[in-house]
Amino acid sequence: MPVIRILRLGHRIYRDLRVSTHCALVAYALGARGITFSGSRDNGLMDGVKKIVRQWGGEFDVEYDADWRGLMMEFKRGGGFVIHSTMYGINLPDVIGKIRETFRERDILLVVGSKKVPSEVYQMADANVAVTNLPHSEVASTAIILDWIFEGRELSRRLPAARTKIVPQERGKKVMKNI
Amino acid sequence: MPVIRILRLGHRIYRDLRVSTHCALVAYALGARGITFSGSRDNGLMDGVKKIVRQWGGEFDVEYDADWRGLMMEFKRGGGFVIHSTMYGINLPDVIGKIRETFRERDILLVVGSKKVPSEVYQMADANVAVTNLPHSEVASTAIILDWIFEGRELSRRLPAARTKIVPQERGKKVMKNI
Repeated sequence: MPVIRILRLGHRIYRDLRVSTHCALVAYALGARGITFSGSRDNGLMDGVKKIVRQWGGEFDVEYDADWRGLMMEFKRGGGFVIHSTMYGINLPDVIGKIRETFRERDILLVVGSKKVPSEVYQMADANVAVTNLPHSEVASTAIILDWIFEGRELSRRLPAARTKIVPQERGKKVMKNI
Repeated sequence: MPVIRILRLGHRIYRDLRVSTHCALVAYALGARGITFSGSRDNGLMDGVKKIVRQWGGEFDVEYDADWRGLMMEFKRGGGFVIHSTMYGINLPDVIGKIRETFRERDILLVVGSKKVPSEVYQMADANVAVTNLPHSEVASTAIILDWIFEGRELSRRLPAARTKIVPQERGKKVMKNI
């Protein structure tokens, strides 16, 4: 079955720590198979995400690649479909049909920028996709795009090999540890 | 027609600026009617969000209230339904039916925490709702909860009185200004 991975462009140490962490955790929680960070190499960020994945289970890899251009080209050469998340692109409801159809057979790389994204990315992407054409948040766009591609099913996954697990409560908190 | 507004708890100046800004802009872009910040009063944050709303159009108000407890109580007394977004709550797919039904007749207040949320919030909320029971991002949870309640229709809204507007492009950027 095809998988989705995230490419987070242009990470900046300190400044982007929280937003890049949110991007990675959202990718993980909403069913992507992994994330590759580009920009500044930030071992603290990557270790933090890996630690959460070990604790909460499932399959999700965290990588770094300075050469995002090479990564995108290789992904395309391997038959993958590249989506660039940008407020300037085609609004998600207008392309979701095509994307879901593509995803039946091809892996997807979802490219998520931070600071100004090079125009090459717009050119190399197979689809430039907006979540509304309003300015808001790359974290939210990542979440919504994944949720629409998976049609909401990823919210109900159970992750294998979890060491920590929440038992959903109407009120309050119940956490199972060391399971 | 009922509306949804956001209550962002425990904002901290500097530390939360980007994440709180993302929360507000996501609320705006995905169809909420307004946001109330609590925690530290941050005029820079509020002015930044208001400026974006003036530029991009539509109706969205930005307020501050130190007394989140009073705000929640008043909202409930007025017949509103309070949802608290928390990873410890009931997973969204298991409560969305009830929430959509409620939203046909009652306004919703979506409470979004930052630092540790007081246990009172769990008690006062009509529903504690998780977007997966995994740790990720309050920005993503806000986005997904709004998108599920509105069943994706909010993505295709056109905002009245916009001064700036994007013309969606397959590749590149096209922006209409001073319209």
